[in-house]
Amino acid sequence: MSFRNNFRKITPYVPGEQSKDRDIVKINANENPYPPSPKAAAALKTFDCEKLRFYPNANATILKEVLADYYGVGVENVFVGNGSDDVIALAFQSFFCSDKPIAYPDITYSFYPVWCDLFRIEYTTYPLDENFRINLEDYKAENGGVVIPNPNAPTSLGEGEEFIRTLLDYNRDSVVIIDEAYVDFGGYSSVNLTKEYDNLLVTGTFSKSRSLAGIRLGFAIGSAELISVLEAVKNSYNSYTVDSLAIAMGIESVKDDEYFKETVGKVIKTRKRVTDELRALGFEVLDSQTNFIMATHCGYNMKDYFDYLKAKKVFIRYFSLPRIDKYVRITIGTDGEMDRFLEETRNFLGGK
Amino acid sequence: MSFRNNFRKITPYVPGEQSKDRDIVKINANENPYPPSPKAAAALKTFDCEKLRFYPNANATILKEVLADYYGVGVENVFVGNGSDDVIALAFQSFFCSDKPIAYPDITYSFYPVWCDLFRIEYTTYPLDENFRINLEDYKAENGGVVIPNPNAPTSLGEGEEFIRTLLDYNRDSVVIIDEAYVDFGGYSSVNLTKEYDNLLVTGTFSKSRSLAGIRLGFAIGSAELISVLEAVKNSYNSYTVDSLAIAMGIESVKDDEYFKETVGKVIKTRKRVTDELRALGFEVLDSQTNFIMATHCGYNMKDYFDYLKAKKVFIRYFSLPRIDKYVRITIGTDGEMDRFLEETRNFLGGK
Repeated sequence: MSFRNNFRKITPYVPGEQSKDRDIVKINANENPYPPSPKAAAALKTFDCEKLRFYPNANATILKEVLADYYGVGVENVFVGNGSDDVIALAFQSFFCSDKPIAYPDITYSFYPVWCDLFRIEYTTYPLDENFRINLEDYKAENGGVVIPNPNAPTSLGEGEEFIRTLLDYNRDSVVIIDEAYVDFGGYSSVNLTKEYDNLLVTGTFSKSRSLAGIRLGFAIGSAELISVLEAVKNSYNSYTVDSLAIAMGIESVKDDEYFKETVGKVIKTRKRVTDELRALGFEVLDSQTNFIMATHCGYNMKDYFDYLKAKKVFIRYFSLPRIDKYVRITIGTDGEMDRFLEETRNFLGGK
Repeated sequence: MSFRNNFRKITPYVPGEQSKDRDIVKINANENPYPPSPKAAAALKTFDCEKLRFYPNANATILKEVLADYYGVGVENVFVGNGSDDVIALAFQSFFCSDKPIAYPDITYSFYPVWCDLFRIEYTTYPLDENFRINLEDYKAENGGVVIPNPNAPTSLGEGEEFIRTLLDYNRDSVVIIDEAYVDFGGYSSVNLTKEYDNLLVTGTFSKSRSLAGIRLGFAIGSAELISVLEAVKNSYNSYTVDSLAIAMGIESVKDDEYFKETVGKVIKTRKRVTDELRALGFEVLDSQTNFIMATHCGYNMKDYFDYLKAKKVFIRYFSLPRIDKYVRITIGTDGEMDRFLEETRNFLGGK
């Protein structure tokens, strides 16, 4: 008998590589190439540091009010957490206490199976079809809960209102989580459906469209009932998950809608240009509704392409996983970064 | 059948009350009355906000190095998390996967039973003796793990090296967590014992002695083996629990040891004065090794005392719990705040 017998058995998740080399084009982590709102930055610079000796407002009241106003819901319909990973993990713990397996696609966010392992939740994955689309009929089967990213990652593909309504109609007896991490880049948001479906939880993040991955801020919108359960579980784990600085910056970010629309618009514009240029070079590129694109080229090995770019200090993402190992995922950077990416891509194609 | 059947059943923990009224003497949450290190504040003011578009360093490398250096351990012996609540909750999930109940005192940090409920961990509580001391022999019994705050809260009482060594010798087959949230105010730290006992995990926080409750930063020190298990569980839950601003401020706080010693010294000095004055007024005050004191008065009802002070805008803490409902907990504030507290205390005693 040893204390080691009581360790949690877990396969460690390894976070993506990071580098401080300023010369690197880092388009591998779906980070936003533009800085956060100058108003959010100003909130940091004028923050009264003496206040940091106090615990944060455990309820993040003003931030919730600003989000409720932005999304046209009540403050009782808003939850905030330490990044959307924290929010979704809490939602798994809160709503998926069933004997039946929860359901999600086979190709999706890699944290879902990790959370199921950690919280001992059974799950069934349903394969995307040959076009990487979700087959709605799979989600008619009885289940202990449903989680779908919309748009999905790493496929970049999104679904519209009719799809989500049908999914919800099939699953009146389960909580359905729609993970909208990427929705601001052109996807359909189900936020309004939370008023009709009291089993729908929509999650979002400040890490992508709001350029605030460094402060760890995520949120969820749903019926007052779902939100109150989330609050109870959060307050049992750690009442102060969201720090005072994240609250202060988050408020100003949401209020600065002009800057938000401008930077999101730039990413969408660059995405269109890069998609067109890659297609002209013979790549197959899925129709992205996100800040990244999923691409392949029938004449080349994508692992070789990934390695070539890495040697040239252009970091994209390659998944050595079934069904998607013929693709690469490329985050949309600034136009300058994407020019360097495209230039090295042409060198790769030409050099073969 | 309803989706509500799959909700996690939990009794919500209610965080302590907060107020924005500047006139209030808030000595109810064990917050530090002095601001954080000016060097930590400067790190915030000079932080390059553009970097917030990136995810934080998931490993918080520099912060870990600074802490390792400060505590004289290796960087592989240091873990950091989103407040010590997050760190201890992760440690519960990581090390207490046993069929046997874990052991801790009946009067202690109120989150331990809440985490046991949330993570479905069995537990046994052992009563403190009539002087609010831990009876070491209780911890000789077989268990699935041990957690002890040292100094303990809300008793304010601490134990020394011999006690902790005996506890560890009794528990070679369990992970022992020593929660040192308050140790910097005069307690004995077991950090050096982590080099001898590979089943010992010591946890700490930036919320009390470092005046940084608002940024949410906690840490743990233990054998490389324990730390690697914690890292695996953390990376399965949320790789980026500690945000970039907390990392930047945390580093400068640890480096500014002069300021740290000065402010901790002031709290200890004020604690002595308040203890002496309360005793002169007929209070019984336990010998605190923390930034708060536990006090009672045989001639008065402590709930009445708490209510009286609250009406006078002096917020202390009263626990309506068995065995400690004859006591109040008073956080050590500035000398000015404590003067007002003492003045209202005299008014209360005189008015009865």
